[in-house]
Amino acid sequence: MEELVNGVDVHALGEVIEKVRADPSLARFRFRVSNRWDEGGHSETTIDGFYGAGAEQTSDNRPFTLEADEAPVLLGEDRAPNAVEHLLNALATCMTGSLAYHAAARGIRLDRIESELRGEIDLRGFLGISDQIRNGFQHIEATFRVEGDGTEEELAELIRFSPVLDVVSNGTDVSLRVEKLEAAEAPSASPEELHPPA
Amino acid sequence: MEELVNGVDVHALGEVIEKVRADPSLARFRFRVSNRWDEGGHSETTIDGFYGAGAEQTSDNRPFTLEADEAPVLLGEDRAPNAVEHLLNALATCMTGSLAYHAAARGIRLDRIESELRGEIDLRGFLGISDQIRNGFQHIEATFRVEGDGTEEELAELIRFSPVLDVVSNGTDVSLRVEKLEAAEAPSASPEELHPPA
Repeated sequence: MEELVNGVDVHALGEVIEKVRADPSLARFRFRVSNRWDEGGHSETTIDGFYGAGAEQTSDNRPFTLEADEAPVLLGEDRAPNAVEHLLNALATCMTGSLAYHAAARGIRLDRIESELRGEIDLRGFLGISDQIRNGFQHIEATFRVEGDGTEEELAELIRFSPVLDVVSNGTDVSLRVEKLEAAEAPSASPEELHPPA
Repeated sequence: MEELVNGVDVHALGEVIEKVRADPSLARFRFRVSNRWDEGGHSETTIDGFYGAGAEQTSDNRPFTLEADEAPVLLGEDRAPNAVEHLLNALATCMTGSLAYHAAARGIRLDRIESELRGEIDLRGFLGISDQIRNGFQHIEATFRVEGDGTEEELAELIRFSPVLDVVSNGTDVSLRVEKLEAAEAPSASPEELHPPA
């Protein structure tokens, strides 16, 4: 029995919630990406499967690839969005999806969600010119325009379920490990390297 | 006079730093994205120009578009990476680019940078099953493998200049505004940013 609200199958969503209540281990997800540098600010990320709902998950559409670069004013060639633009994209898509899902769960029908996000950054931090200025965004502003049911206050509450908004607002522990490779060492396996060049 | 280290023109980088020292207003950047929802967790982001170095910046490659969706286990169709995978991509590309630039500025030559990032999330937070569990990543693990000069400790220090790492580790103020649109209303114009950040 499929009942779509905001493109979300609310019957299936209810089942997911019941299953997770009964077995909390199903709620544990691990997402992963791998990145390979090209030069300067240009690199490529591969996103293969993830672990969640008690099993490894993938689909025919994966792996996905994403690229980042810097604009000429930041000494790149603008082949792709830069990393902080990717961060704003992550935040925008997460807030939008969270609104659609949580509204669906409450029977609030939405016809349109549009948003604009702006992030202010003072590059004196990143450039090491001032240690009084942080390296990241000093402030992010998000404006949502929504057509459908629900009040502005209700919709704002639902947007605040966003996992990326939680991370960006409150921070998350990031552990960093760096390993030096010797030039002679074989590169770590990646799918394309399993096949000889054509 | 172009001198490339890690694909970064270090002469131009030195000039940027000198110009910003002389006129700190040149360090103010404002990045922006706009997002339009399709259905469920599927939405599309458009990334046009940005403001920085005292002027509006764009290139022939822009606007960029990025998509997000959810996997079937999260009730989507897996048309694109999901928002938290986009967040890991933002973090990976930013740490990688920051390492390349800061190493270049110090004359540390790098031949290869590869990384893997993993983020752990317990969906009982997002699903509203437990208010003891946060909605976002509980922990992110980043492993970098680097070929080239510099010690592991030096390289880790350079990676820590990353603006996205700062945001993800320490959090940033996000202000949220939600406006209801009437069905009849035309979508609001999305004006180009003509004014410098405050």
